[in-house]
Amino acid sequence: MGQYAAPIRDMQFVLHEVLNVEAELKRMPKHAALDADTINQVLEEAGKFCAEVVFPLNQSGDREGCTYEGDGVVRTPAGFKEAYRQYVEAGWPMLGCDPEFGGQGLPAFVNNALYEMLNSANQAWTMYPGLSHGVYECLHAHGTPKQKSVYLPKLIEGTWTGTMCLSEPHCGTDLGILCTKAEPNSDGSYALTGTKIFISSGEHDMAENIVHLVLARLPGAPMGIKGISLFIVPKFVPSSDGSVGERNGIKCGSIEHKMGIHGNATCVMNLDGAKGWLVGEENKGLNAMFVMMNAARLGVGMQGLSLTEVAYQNSLTYAKERLQMRSLTGPKAPDKPADPIIVHPDVRRMLLTQKAYAEAGRAFAYWAALNIDKELSHEDDAVRREAADFVALLTPVIKAFLTDNAFEGTNMAMQIYGGHGFISEWGMEQYVRDARINMIYEGTNSIQALDLLGRKIFGDMGAKLKRFGKLVTDFVEEEGIKPEMQEFINPLADIGEKVQKLTMEIGMKAMQNPDEVGAAAVPYLRTVGHLVFSYFWARMAHVALDNASSGDDFYKAKLATARFYFAKLLPETASAIRAARAGAKPMMDYDEALF
Amino acid sequence: MGQYAAPIRDMQFVLHEVLNVEAELKRMPKHAALDADTINQVLEEAGKFCAEVVFPLNQSGDREGCTYEGDGVVRTPAGFKEAYRQYVEAGWPMLGCDPEFGGQGLPAFVNNALYEMLNSANQAWTMYPGLSHGVYECLHAHGTPKQKSVYLPKLIEGTWTGTMCLSEPHCGTDLGILCTKAEPNSDGSYALTGTKIFISSGEHDMAENIVHLVLARLPGAPMGIKGISLFIVPKFVPSSDGSVGERNGIKCGSIEHKMGIHGNATCVMNLDGAKGWLVGEENKGLNAMFVMMNAARLGVGMQGLSLTEVAYQNSLTYAKERLQMRSLTGPKAPDKPADPIIVHPDVRRMLLTQKAYAEAGRAFAYWAALNIDKELSHEDDAVRREAADFVALLTPVIKAFLTDNAFEGTNMAMQIYGGHGFISEWGMEQYVRDARINMIYEGTNSIQALDLLGRKIFGDMGAKLKRFGKLVTDFVEEEGIKPEMQEFINPLADIGEKVQKLTMEIGMKAMQNPDEVGAAAVPYLRTVGHLVFSYFWARMAHVALDNASSGDDFYKAKLATARFYFAKLLPETASAIRAARAGAKPMMDYDEALF
Repeated sequence: MGQYAAPIRDMQFVLHEVLNVEAELKRMPKHAALDADTINQVLEEAGKFCAEVVFPLNQSGDREGCTYEGDGVVRTPAGFKEAYRQYVEAGWPMLGCDPEFGGQGLPAFVNNALYEMLNSANQAWTMYPGLSHGVYECLHAHGTPKQKSVYLPKLIEGTWTGTMCLSEPHCGTDLGILCTKAEPNSDGSYALTGTKIFISSGEHDMAENIVHLVLARLPGAPMGIKGISLFIVPKFVPSSDGSVGERNGIKCGSIEHKMGIHGNATCVMNLDGAKGWLVGEENKGLNAMFVMMNAARLGVGMQGLSLTEVAYQNSLTYAKERLQMRSLTGPKAPDKPADPIIVHPDVRRMLLTQKAYAEAGRAFAYWAALNIDKELSHEDDAVRREAADFVALLTPVIKAFLTDNAFEGTNMAMQIYGGHGFISEWGMEQYVRDARINMIYEGTNSIQALDLLGRKIFGDMGAKLKRFGKLVTDFVEEEGIKPEMQEFINPLADIGEKVQKLTMEIGMKAMQNPDEVGAAAVPYLRTVGHLVFSYFWARMAHVALDNASSGDDFYKAKLATARFYFAKLLPETASAIRAARAGAKPMMDYDEALF
Repeated sequence: MGQYAAPIRDMQFVLHEVLNVEAELKRMPKHAALDADTINQVLEEAGKFCAEVVFPLNQSGDREGCTYEGDGVVRTPAGFKEAYRQYVEAGWPMLGCDPEFGGQGLPAFVNNALYEMLNSANQAWTMYPGLSHGVYECLHAHGTPKQKSVYLPKLIEGTWTGTMCLSEPHCGTDLGILCTKAEPNSDGSYALTGTKIFISSGEHDMAENIVHLVLARLPGAPMGIKGISLFIVPKFVPSSDGSVGERNGIKCGSIEHKMGIHGNATCVMNLDGAKGWLVGEENKGLNAMFVMMNAARLGVGMQGLSLTEVAYQNSLTYAKERLQMRSLTGPKAPDKPADPIIVHPDVRRMLLTQKAYAEAGRAFAYWAALNIDKELSHEDDAVRREAADFVALLTPVIKAFLTDNAFEGTNMAMQIYGGHGFISEWGMEQYVRDARINMIYEGTNSIQALDLLGRKIFGDMGAKLKRFGKLVTDFVEEEGIKPEMQEFINPLADIGEKVQKLTMEIGMKAMQNPDEVGAAAVPYLRTVGHLVFSYFWARMAHVALDNASSGDDFYKAKLATARFYFAKLLPETASAIRAARAGAKPMMDYDEALF
């Protein structure tokens, strides 16, 4: 049951009409030869693969879940292994990887588009290749030449997958208190001992080896996060010929029973003197891991976008088919026993909320991915630095804003189904359950908000935020003189000014009391998220207006969705700003004994 | 895992200190002899029963779920039957029932308090006795003397349970298109044939008989809701001696696999010439059923309150125990590896949101139940009429506002647990899954919003709303002169004026275009909900101020929570009012082809 078709036209609209990626690529020597046709072909092929191979396993994978077979063995749901074999055979893991190690070298934004579709089709399944790609990125950035030559080709082929092993029973957010130990062996390797929990894709039957990246402490390492080192701990130790050798002492002890993403094995991993190799410098493991965590945070934001999109597609079909009640303005389908529920304003509110969130989320996430490409490959150093700032600033916003929106969106999709939404068979409640984890893992959304406000904004006295603000004000100045753009430009300019003022105000208060940052952070992030969405809706409206004469319904829909966004969704900021301004007092004047 | 203790002190605070129920009861001849001590004894006994007998089955019931054994037989989770036996033995089903038929005749608000605790302990289990009570109320109001004498004593004892059979595969919200048929038999009974779906507690192994109230059409009945009649269709036809006789032709065909409330059997019920007896008048079945639906809507609102309370209790304990990170203002537990997470402002925001919602929700729901008692039993006719207006006006607000808040609250509780929140073992994700149905059944929350704005408010040109408005303005005038009350009275007066203005404005627009009602209804209901919560928080703050000199932490906490409510939660109305004012255009100017 259910449906998914890759939203190719919408993806192309963002890439080619809003972001003009072809022109941008011309200034990235590595990608200068890549043209729009090739990108479009990749999108179409990927869309087909996701809809035909990955999507049909989504509901069955949820129902069956993973099975712990005992003695460290985990079986994935029926079909998962075979789909992964096809995925590897078709070369999809290579897409965004370095040609030096066997990759296809396509830009990050193309890989992101692939992941949007994969996650729409099946988030639980996609987390197996998704985490591998994160490990690839971390080793590519921090591995020794030898580590790269051993591991990267296998990860790029997809014959080996990867994980990140961070959390322990007593620590998740607070990695500073982790206590897995790494003792040096005489051969330059280390013996790791400890317990890791919540390890997504930690054990499974889909690949011949699993490459774990594990955080641990060396003997005598400083307390806190400055005493954490990063290690490669493979399930099977690679032999010199590239084949898998002896079984290593890292083993899955059990898997978790969870609210959602049942098809992904969330493992307790026990390390018992497991052989590991240091990645990067001693005690600087967290820096190396941050490469992977940032990529993962963007990836989780994409998961939010993906679920919003697929839930929207399903609830739209249902709203057009389900007959129930008459329109308050008189029958719209008089030949039928009742009108399709899409005639009711509140059903449309729920549909358009999902649609507006999905489309702005896509523009935002693809733009962020394009900035990753610029950061890595642009010929102009100033552009590279600016892009890096955008990515750093907005990674927590993509993660938290898109996943909060996805929870709201999938819940609306479920609500449109009425009672049927609560029934597993219809598939909508799964999207809500799957979407829920995205607000928690890779740093809870509260932590993202603290990262945005405390580190990314106050950490450089607002310099990065000013850079983004300039993008907005440049656009406002350029387009604000056109009468037909004013309905979009005016609220954009307004929210831009409000964010600026709010930031200053919290900054002043935070100098007196650091708790002001924690108190304001969550509603502040919602406000910044809306600034970003207002910016992209104004840009999309601009493109749509330029094409208004074409008579194409696609552009009419874009304009109408932009209007819906400004009228019905942006007003959330009125409350969010008030809540952010309310300060720390209402929470912190509350003695703990009074709770 | 997990915990639940009945919040007796908070319940007593609302009943005795805020609502002064003892004084109110003096003016209800039926209840005049009931004193506070007796009420308190009932609360304490009920609290014990819920915590000791019902709560321990909550998580195991979710895990095991109900089992369809084939041939119409359903097995409830281990322990459910035995707990129900104890419930019946202790006489709890009798609590709020008419002494004429064996009940204990306690007021509705006491029964509501019982149900708050039962639902906190185990919503899925509580739906078995809960629906029975609804059937009792419907038959008590509309049954013939003979029907009452046959069915009421059994329902009151609890040896028989009950259900409401409304939905069919093609209709839920839109009962006008239902098509189950009732053909007259020669003996005055009817033969019912059709399929009913989503029948909570429709079949189980806990009682000797199940009394189904079924909506169906008589031959030649008018189309739409004016052609629907109500029938009693017992699982076993009662013999003249009160024992159960022949098996009737109503049978469970299957049970649904659902997101939550796994311990309650949601049944497809097939009627194949089942014997039924008409309740009330022909073609006026919906009127009779509305008695039950209104009681059920209040009951669902209570379920929201219940889940908010129990989730709060658990997340509070976790927040005090879980050590993670240091306070931004410096270590608070320097002897420990990290501070308990309750030191972080955003964790407190999530705790206090739950607390503020639970406590205002309790005051609101108990006040509504007290008004049901007044409506039924007050000596003064004018008071009875006023109470009936309050109940009619605010039933949809209790249902929708409390269940929306509960979904937000349980999600916050789960978020406080971080990754552990997503793991079933910890029990928090079950509260989210259970809470989700409350926004859907007994009329989706969109339907509640339409009922409030379209029927309850515009249906009498705002007369009922004005009555409630007068309560508010009287309180504002009385208390507004006290300086210490101004921080509560000013925002209350402000939101009161805003609701009045918003209502007028939508009313004017709706005269031009009925879709304006549907477009504004959901954010309008949120706004009215906050008006009600502001009123009760101001009243609770008033009581707390009166007791400030006692030095009791309980009153300090009430004041601090009231302040939190006004600073951090009431601001939601700033957005809600804007969204309500945005009107129908953003949705309805959107051609269906553009979606």
